[in-house]
Amino acid sequence: MIILDRAQIEDLIDLEIAGQAIAAAYIAASRGHVNLPAVGHITFPDRSADCHIKYGHVQGDPNFVIKVATGFPQNAETGLPTGNGVSLVMSAQTGAVNAVLHDQMLLTDIRTGLGGAIATKNLARADSRRVLVVGTGPQALRQIQSHIALIGDHLTFEVWGRSNAKAQAVVAAMTGKCAIAVAPDLEAAACKADIIVTATGSNTPLIKDEWVNRGTHVTALGADAPGKQELETNLVARADVLVADSSAQCLDHGEFCHAFGTAKILATQVSELGLVLSGDVRGRTDPAQISIADLTGIAAQDIAIANVVLAAQGAN
Amino acid sequence: MIILDRAQIEDLIDLEIAGQAIAAAYIAASRGHVNLPAVGHITFPDRSADCHIKYGHVQGDPNFVIKVATGFPQNAETGLPTGNGVSLVMSAQTGAVNAVLHDQMLLTDIRTGLGGAIATKNLARADSRRVLVVGTGPQALRQIQSHIALIGDHLTFEVWGRSNAKAQAVVAAMTGKCAIAVAPDLEAAACKADIIVTATGSNTPLIKDEWVNRGTHVTALGADAPGKQELETNLVARADVLVADSSAQCLDHGEFCHAFGTAKILATQVSELGLVLSGDVRGRTDPAQISIADLTGIAAQDIAIANVVLAAQGAN
Repeated sequence: MIILDRAQIEDLIDLEIAGQAIAAAYIAASRGHVNLPAVGHITFPDRSADCHIKYGHVQGDPNFVIKVATGFPQNAETGLPTGNGVSLVMSAQTGAVNAVLHDQMLLTDIRTGLGGAIATKNLARADSRRVLVVGTGPQALRQIQSHIALIGDHLTFEVWGRSNAKAQAVVAAMTGKCAIAVAPDLEAAACKADIIVTATGSNTPLIKDEWVNRGTHVTALGADAPGKQELETNLVARADVLVADSSAQCLDHGEFCHAFGTAKILATQVSELGLVLSGDVRGRTDPAQISIADLTGIAAQDIAIANVVLAAQGAN
Repeated sequence: MIILDRAQIEDLIDLEIAGQAIAAAYIAASRGHVNLPAVGHITFPDRSADCHIKYGHVQGDPNFVIKVATGFPQNAETGLPTGNGVSLVMSAQTGAVNAVLHDQMLLTDIRTGLGGAIATKNLARADSRRVLVVGTGPQALRQIQSHIALIGDHLTFEVWGRSNAKAQAVVAAMTGKCAIAVAPDLEAAACKADIIVTATGSNTPLIKDEWVNRGTHVTALGADAPGKQELETNLVARADVLVADSSAQCLDHGEFCHAFGTAKILATQVSELGLVLSGDVRGRTDPAQISIADLTGIAAQDIAIANVVLAAQGAN
């Protein structure tokens, strides 16, 4: 049984290889080739805390994966991480526990970063250069790193956050690795962006419909639970191309649920990312289109990233 | 994060302490003080294999437990264990992973053994001495060890199995530790036993109604899935005291389901072990009664035994 801690896991991950595995996982999921039982869930009401157990098996994979993730918001009061967990990589041939990945949310962060970059790469205009990143949490950095790794270092970044200091910190962390600056004004930055990546926990729309030019692509990944929203509903309604990592999830509790719930879009307008990646359905067909990817996160990503770690460990 | 393998776990377990913890877990479960979400399950049809995820939290416990158990019957062809798994002990205060117990089914075996002894201790006549153990698998040994640890070394054992060689092996393993012999004839052994413990995977009744004297106690733990049966239905119907670890499970797919399904017993005749242990309901009230405990295994046992290991590790 292999046991890896967070630092060991980070050393083993190559973003390009992991990106390929996650793209394949999106395809497998959208084609129905992933056995994904219902997510397990236990709550700790006195702490407003919970634990999710996501698990599944991609047909043909030698391993299956059980990801355990806890959310204990009160940890912030004592300086502990609010998210924690472990992924078990289990043999689908023998049932043995091949590996315990004590990643403490690292794999979730990385797979979410890569999911954003995969969506952008496959939906944005080919000549896109200017990326606006909205949000300054750990996922802002992951998105920038993943976009550079999967799309290229010709991209230039502006970072906007409610806290200017946090935006400065994101810029400082990436200075020297790419062209990056703080965006002083969200409206001005949105108006000139080719690509907008939203990675906040906002409950009210941050990006107004009128700010977004024709030809823009938006990757929205902050809205992963009921009540969260980053884009004005009219922007989603106006977009030409709507792509979801999971149609069922996004229409239920993702960014798209607001437009869907008010009948401004139809479920049939939403394509799944995996089918765009596979070529089964078309994504962007015209440079002037507005495209939006709504990413809520799917267990197939967790399976893929855990398998990537174990494969890299085996190759070492 | 503490990581313990099977041998380390075995060294840490004291059967008496673990027995107390499991008795407390039965009480908590029967009183509704355990948060037990639905069991997770994923299948691997091409191998007739599966994986169960049992998890839960006893109110007030500092930890919660996630037990992952795999069953891959085809492993027998290559000499690998057919059952495997791991228990995660997680903090209910912070969500951190406190321990990974790579027990490979050891904890399930031990908690099942202790469950049998707890039932016997609380339901058999106080002057019981002669124990018949039916079955020669690993659980036969666990039952003998647990009965000695929790009830006392005044007990004498006879072991019966379809394979005389396997029965001899069980006897050999315990020789010098207790009075024990192979039972050459099941009927004769059953007729003179004060306590009968059945631990087989039988699909047809092994213990006939007419063999069982007044005053006998039976602990039946082999029937844990639909189709399995160790006791004649009429014996269950004739018994005075019926106790289940979980009424819902036992009436659905335990030993009692056959008598219940044919309307030979009523659900209201079955008491839960936890409520007998707590004194909320009465178990045996007369030495002449026949009592039967039907044990299908409950997740509260898994939680308790994992917590025992972690507590022992912390005390070392």
